[in-house]
Amino acid sequence: MPSIIVQKFGGTSVGSPERIKAVATRVIESQKHYDHVVVVVSAMGDTTDDLISLAKQITSKPSAREYDALISTGENISAALVAMAIQAQGGHAISLTGPQAGVQTENLYSKAKITRVDPTRLRKELSEGKIVIVTGFQGLNDFNDVTTIGRGGSDTSAVVLAAALGAPVCEIYTDVDGVYTTDPRAVKTASKLAEISYDEMLELASLGAKVLHPRSVECAKENNIILHVRSSFSPEEGTMVKEANPMENNRPVTGITLSEEEAVISLNKIPDTPGTASQLFTQLAEASVNVDMIIQSSEENNKNTITFTVLEDDFDTAKNVTESVAKTLNAQNVTTNTSIAKISIVGVGMISKPGIAARMFSALGKNGININLISTSEIKISCAIARSDAKHALALLHTEFELDKH
Amino acid sequence: MPSIIVQKFGGTSVGSPERIKAVATRVIESQKHYDHVVVVVSAMGDTTDDLISLAKQITSKPSAREYDALISTGENISAALVAMAIQAQGGHAISLTGPQAGVQTENLYSKAKITRVDPTRLRKELSEGKIVIVTGFQGLNDFNDVTTIGRGGSDTSAVVLAAALGAPVCEIYTDVDGVYTTDPRAVKTASKLAEISYDEMLELASLGAKVLHPRSVECAKENNIILHVRSSFSPEEGTMVKEANPMENNRPVTGITLSEEEAVISLNKIPDTPGTASQLFTQLAEASVNVDMIIQSSEENNKNTITFTVLEDDFDTAKNVTESVAKTLNAQNVTTNTSIAKISIVGVGMISKPGIAARMFSALGKNGININLISTSEIKISCAIARSDAKHALALLHTEFELDKH
Repeated sequence: MPSIIVQKFGGTSVGSPERIKAVATRVIESQKHYDHVVVVVSAMGDTTDDLISLAKQITSKPSAREYDALISTGENISAALVAMAIQAQGGHAISLTGPQAGVQTENLYSKAKITRVDPTRLRKELSEGKIVIVTGFQGLNDFNDVTTIGRGGSDTSAVVLAAALGAPVCEIYTDVDGVYTTDPRAVKTASKLAEISYDEMLELASLGAKVLHPRSVECAKENNIILHVRSSFSPEEGTMVKEANPMENNRPVTGITLSEEEAVISLNKIPDTPGTASQLFTQLAEASVNVDMIIQSSEENNKNTITFTVLEDDFDTAKNVTESVAKTLNAQNVTTNTSIAKISIVGVGMISKPGIAARMFSALGKNGININLISTSEIKISCAIARSDAKHALALLHTEFELDKH
Repeated sequence: MPSIIVQKFGGTSVGSPERIKAVATRVIESQKHYDHVVVVVSAMGDTTDDLISLAKQITSKPSAREYDALISTGENISAALVAMAIQAQGGHAISLTGPQAGVQTENLYSKAKITRVDPTRLRKELSEGKIVIVTGFQGLNDFNDVTTIGRGGSDTSAVVLAAALGAPVCEIYTDVDGVYTTDPRAVKTASKLAEISYDEMLELASLGAKVLHPRSVECAKENNIILHVRSSFSPEEGTMVKEANPMENNRPVTGITLSEEEAVISLNKIPDTPGTASQLFTQLAEASVNVDMIIQSSEENNKNTITFTVLEDDFDTAKNVTESVAKTLNAQNVTTNTSIAKISIVGVGMISKPGIAARMFSALGKNGININLISTSEIKISCAIARSDAKHALALLHTEFELDKH
């Protein structure tokens, strides 16, 4: 069977004619190592934002169908230019739109899921020795209309095409050279990970590491495709995102993330009757507020207090909803704190190594950092702390869990 | 049968969000007068030029297929924005790409001819009360690839769609308010024509009046569709391009055009042997030189002189070819004149009114304007004159043939 690689280049990597030429050179080089090369591209640099700005000058509420027809053109432009650049350097190439590449989606717009890929045309062009450039982020629905597939779209397009073509590895070329133990801009000693498991990457991605969208990681996990996150500006290997190998795993913590845009809301001293929490969180969900950490504590006189965190952007809405619920439920009052950060440690190793949570709390406590809320999953522990403590907490936990560069 | 109109808006008419909103208002207004409204749009203002410039930064010779994939996005953007603008004003609208609208072309790129239109989807959307916005300038070939249809493309797209849908009139909205007796910037008294025949319009268009591309006029003539050329910035009626009505035609001359970028080349005193002219013009054609007027004169000693005009852009190439042919043919020499203009009078009326040519020559002669070359068709007489006489000649012929505004 012919060897095949799928390579995805993000908006920065194709951000100018010069960069597009560099991508072409790199892609042609890849053809020496693989029989078939498929390239998935995002729109150039600010193109999508420029198109969105045009739409906003027309109307604040464009129909989703026309919006997709509009913004999908950004990827069409970069795909055609990359194909031209490859041809100009003597390579064989052809650009295909998502619809031409057989990417079929739900009959939704702006956030359609890809339902299937018919790789007939892709296979035909590959068999003729061409490098095939596919526009990321888009597909075709049953009405023969272009759809876009939402945030993280091009990464997901690349993984879905890798799955449809039986490619074992999907390379994600970006402007950083891999996945780090934490944001290297925040912690100078942050080190690049040679590999990370799908589940860890999912937690990190969900917690705000912007290098990969959770959806593309989920899709890679489902199809057992290795994601190779690497720099488009350097030949060095990056980070492999793949199935965890439990035999080899010695680190309890793989990465640490910090989110500094959190707020805490407390609904204080509600009479303890069943359904209280449900009433609050149903109304928050109806107002499209994403609630993150939640704790409920019982107090004297059969009163309960519910405390939860939201992103700062959702704070005003969440506060209004909570205050209205407070009246209905006869709560004592609502208190808030908008100077909160959330720090999280992530690692599949913590499943088999007890005491990691205690080590985290104690490291913070010894340094005088107070913990407001705690939430945990199997491979993650998050603490809400004062925002003024955030940078300090990140540095000390990074050292505590031995993530510093050697 | 429901009434239907096709309206084409050029790049200036959709050149900004504000203008797109104005187009939307106008199109919605049209829905009061017609059961079905189809709108064909060009790319916004400079979009196509910007895309071409991007391609040029990648390579000087892009493949035609990728070039078409690239530049066709300009129309996709404007179509989606016009649809959004109509929706924002309370109208029902949908944008369709050329391929979605069933526009099928030859398997060529950059200048594909439209081979047929399958209006199934168009009819469906129209029957649902929607204004359908179709991207001009593009179609789909048998390989499922987007093609563009060359210069004058969007006008031709509009006419072809009018033919496919049985629309009797196709409105061409542009930045001038109709077709004039001559360029109003050159002659202040130029007057707008209420109507003009297809053949006259074809002559004027070929002679350089840029308001309509000859191809769209030919297509309208073949399908007997009235072209209504009018301003997108004014409600006034413009000019109807339609079949000539010989009963009503009293004017011998409908319009006058001037081209100031001509050059004359003479191949002097060639021995008179058969095939001489053929050898010259075959080689010019092979060098992609468009030759316009040609005269051949016989002189003493069985020698011939061939004189012809070309556009200034082609002059250097034409001169080189002619000089090389001169050697082969033993011609005396090659002489040139690059300060030439061509002035042409056009009118179906001259078929039935003899003496129009004499009247033109005599008007020029009386004013001391020398005629270098003459060429004629059934409805057109062109004279090559000195470029320094051009403006004067235009004004005096405009008056001579009573084309001045009353």
